Amino acid sequence: MNLPSKYLEKAVESMASLPGIGKKTALRLVLNLMNRKPNDVLAFSKAFVDMIEHLKLCKECYNISDHEVCSICSNPGRHDHTICVVRDIRDVMAIENTLQFKGRYHVLGGVISPVDGIGPSDLRIDELIKRINDTTQEIILAFGATMEGDTTNFYLYRKLQQHDVKVTILARGVAVGDELEYADETTLGRSILNRTPFESSLG
Amino acid sequence: MNLPSKYLEKAVESMASLPGIGKKTALRLVLNLMNRKPNDVLAFSKAFVDMIEHLKLCKECYNISDHEVCSICSNPGRHDHTICVVRDIRDVMAIENTLQFKGRYHVLGGVISPVDGIGPSDLRIDELIKRINDTTQEIILAFGATMEGDTTNFYLYRKLQQHDVKVTILARGVAVGDELEYADETTLGRSILNRTPFESSLG
Repeated sequence: MNLPSKYLEKAVESMASLPGIGKKTALRLVLNLMNRKPNDVLAFSKAFVDMIEHLKLCKECYNISDHEVCSICSNPGRHDHTICVVRDIRDVMAIENTLQFKGRYHVLGGVISPVDGIGPSDLRIDELIKRINDTTQEIILAFGATMEGDTTNFYLYRKLQQHDVKVTILARGVAVGDELEYADETTLGRSILNRTPFESSLG
Repeated sequence: MNLPSKYLEKAVESMASLPGIGKKTALRLVLNLMNRKPNDVLAFSKAFVDMIEHLKLCKECYNISDHEVCSICSNPGRHDHTICVVRDIRDVMAIENTLQFKGRYHVLGGVISPVDGIGPSDLRIDELIKRINDTTQEIILAFGATMEGDTTNFYLYRKLQQHDVKVTILARGVAVGDELEYADETTLGRSILNRTPFESSLG
């Protein structure tokens, strides 16, 4: 792309450094910024700088927080015996939205993905192990049903076997609202194997 | 979306203010920024501030430029008798990439779109009229084949009739590489009506 200005080029490059934003989209977004008032663009940019300067990670679970300990870890109404291990804070938010989990979280910071060069040492696995104590009864591995998720499940399962905790993973099965004919074979197979007592569906 | 930090919230809001970026995508992009080194985030943000502070619009054609007059307007190898009117600099770039146009441009700054609240007075129409002089022979209206593009064509055509210039629009027709059966009726109809002598296809 042959841009008529080096400042524009720098801005487009910056925008295109975001995942999933190609050069053409980046140019469209930057042109939108360009049509705003200078002060609005300053505010736009400042939001990211402020975030990086002020944002803390909860020292317990590594969730994002404005304080030392996040609102979930500091909530006395939540129980300590279950720790739900997730990839990042989006998954914390997704699970919180279900209102089905009342324990604590542990944000791993990613999943094992050799393709992306992410190994176990890049993740907060030691930090997870250190959190296990006498009150810990169950560790839920709550990763996506992907190859990376499965690899991480397997690695963590082996690590956690040395500790006296139950390790569970999220149920795989037919999505709520889906017809059977549209479920893929693997999912349908898993949902037959892991069939649950009818009473448990009554919530 | 219930974010655990007000700084994160601000950053996500900023990101989501870009066109076509929803809250979920914005969060994904912001989390990507968060995983970068602080200096990289500063550089990311600075690119937009620098752009807004340094970027100029060419005083002739309103193309984006680092200088008073853009590289196209200051190029003596291009002829003055044809002015190609486009919506924004993306269209300048698209037409430049074809290598088929050797005249000058006029960047209108948008197209007439009542839905988006953009009327003729928001566009650089007076500036276009002022550029017309004795050397000007043809004005090409190069807008997309959309309702907004057609409205702008019509409005400009009426304005330009008062001046002694030929007004043309981009040819509508079957896209190069397309089978006839996949062209829509309107396009195919236009391409029959505006059929061109065979010799002109020899380039």
